[in-house]
Amino acid sequence: MLQNRQILLASRPFGEPKPENFRLATTEISDRPERGLLLKTLWLSVDPYMRGIMDEGDSYTPAVDIGGVMDGGTVSLVLSSRHADHKAGDLLVGYTGWQEYAHTDGEGLRKIDPKTAPISTALGLLGMPGMTAYTGLLNIGLPKSGETLVVAAASGAVGSAVGQIAKLKGCHVVGIAGGPEKTRYVVDELGFDTGLDHRAADFPARLKAACPKGIDIYFENVGGHVWEAVYPLLNDFARVPVCGQIANYSDTGLPPGPDRALALIGTILTKRWRMQGFIVSDFADQTDEFLRDVGGWLRQGKLKYKEDVVVGLENAPAAFMGQLKGRNFGKLLIKVADAPA
Amino acid sequence: MLQNRQILLASRPFGEPKPENFRLATTEISDRPERGLLLKTLWLSVDPYMRGIMDEGDSYTPAVDIGGVMDGGTVSLVLSSRHADHKAGDLLVGYTGWQEYAHTDGEGLRKIDPKTAPISTALGLLGMPGMTAYTGLLNIGLPKSGETLVVAAASGAVGSAVGQIAKLKGCHVVGIAGGPEKTRYVVDELGFDTGLDHRAADFPARLKAACPKGIDIYFENVGGHVWEAVYPLLNDFARVPVCGQIANYSDTGLPPGPDRALALIGTILTKRWRMQGFIVSDFADQTDEFLRDVGGWLRQGKLKYKEDVVVGLENAPAAFMGQLKGRNFGKLLIKVADAPA
Repeated sequence: MLQNRQILLASRPFGEPKPENFRLATTEISDRPERGLLLKTLWLSVDPYMRGIMDEGDSYTPAVDIGGVMDGGTVSLVLSSRHADHKAGDLLVGYTGWQEYAHTDGEGLRKIDPKTAPISTALGLLGMPGMTAYTGLLNIGLPKSGETLVVAAASGAVGSAVGQIAKLKGCHVVGIAGGPEKTRYVVDELGFDTGLDHRAADFPARLKAACPKGIDIYFENVGGHVWEAVYPLLNDFARVPVCGQIANYSDTGLPPGPDRALALIGTILTKRWRMQGFIVSDFADQTDEFLRDVGGWLRQGKLKYKEDVVVGLENAPAAFMGQLKGRNFGKLLIKVADAPA
Repeated sequence: MLQNRQILLASRPFGEPKPENFRLATTEISDRPERGLLLKTLWLSVDPYMRGIMDEGDSYTPAVDIGGVMDGGTVSLVLSSRHADHKAGDLLVGYTGWQEYAHTDGEGLRKIDPKTAPISTALGLLGMPGMTAYTGLLNIGLPKSGETLVVAAASGAVGSAVGQIAKLKGCHVVGIAGGPEKTRYVVDELGFDTGLDHRAADFPARLKAACPKGIDIYFENVGGHVWEAVYPLLNDFARVPVCGQIANYSDTGLPPGPDRALALIGTILTKRWRMQGFIVSDFADQTDEFLRDVGGWLRQGKLKYKEDVVVGLENAPAAFMGQLKGRNFGKLLIKVADAPA
């Protein structure tokens, strides 16, 4: 038997998650499963959507049960296999959760080749966040050369890919992030046209100045006061792929009035905006194009990425809580175990 | 010279338009213009969007100046022509406004053939309202056989066309209207599956019962309490072509809180709705397909329409104010003059 450390959902958060909502447990797991695969987790992805799976009830992702292992994307090493498609030593990407080992029947796992790119990218630019950026931008954002795109959380896994792909499509790209280090990074390293700190007191005025021709595409992943600054600048026929609302995930109630919901619909009408929600799995049939295009751009040096690596499964809850406050810089990953040499 | 009676915008309404916002004036107009066309108005279209042109400032349609002639779609007879494309006796559809005669250079006018359909249909099913229904439904609503579509103002010019075209596409169609006569009409005459009176106290419960599989397409043309009843029933991946918000056109401020605007965006995300505003002119390049398809369906008896005819230009303001309260039954038209025999 193996000792399997896991992070469980101890209780549901009210508002912001707190340490007591998580529990580190150690369970035993057979090292010789009779069926399927035994996997050793190497990398765990920590992503804002995980706030939603901690709540009870409907979301676009299933809720985790109290006492259950937190869900999450992983890159794993096959330790033993009774599965026809995989053998010991293979590297797989899938959703095996916040734990050091997993038994699985092999469903939903995809083999990755460590020769084509670092394996951790299967959780970032070449994984769920990168594909979220690619599919949302191209299917809903519909970027055209010369248009202005704004994206927040711009140094993060999704935002950095959105902005870079939009640049490849010829857009004027404004990235919004928290603090001077991140805003410099998106310009100096990622090649965005402008980086803006949403914490600046005059952020709305700076955003307006950075978008002299208005905003044609706003890739919405934060909500909150960034949305409030963006929407007055959205042009007629603007597209708003709605991908996330991290600033509002821990809201415990609605803000005070007046109620602007019907007025928003009125503005969607008069300005002929397209607002459309999506999650990456809605575009699962575009996986091949995504891997071909984004993998190709990465190998050609046209796309860059940055990882924020935290070592040790036990540190995942704190890393996640920090992410919801914007403390990570780049794709947040938990290094659960060393990859084989 | 001819005596030309016109309806002018006397003042801008605050809230609901009132009689004093309009003024009937008589001006003189040359019966022998040196250029262009002299037109005699036969039919004037009265439509909810006209509430917007009475206000100052930005809308998707230009505001009318104080003292200016109210804009509006018309079917007119050419009395004299110095225009190469048109001759006296021709019938033209265009936007020559709330008046009995007009001089025009011929821009934006389209010839209509009284043999193919009654000429008044060029302002209804074969005109702006019908094309609004056709383009919004097919480009944004994307109806699929077996899906449930809900449309309000269902006995009106746009709603009746939306529901009937959706039936042709195989949808389950629920029409919402005001009062038992209209709700019976949309079922008995137009072939909708259900007609619901939005004034019923238990309207939300009845709507839910009428949509056992939820709502896949909501063609939004009213807003207000109908939207409030609809949105909890919208399925994942619902499409909401946003065409109008008649219930809110005369709002003089925002309703009290809480503020549900960000929560609406959150629901767009988790349910992956597509909400998209449009106006018919956005799809001007689809005029030929529209006339071919809808004209064909009309001639084949697959589409029906109903007209609510008010005689006399002087009665246009009262008819329009009644329309904003849902008092018309069918496409509201002002018969300004008799057509030639």
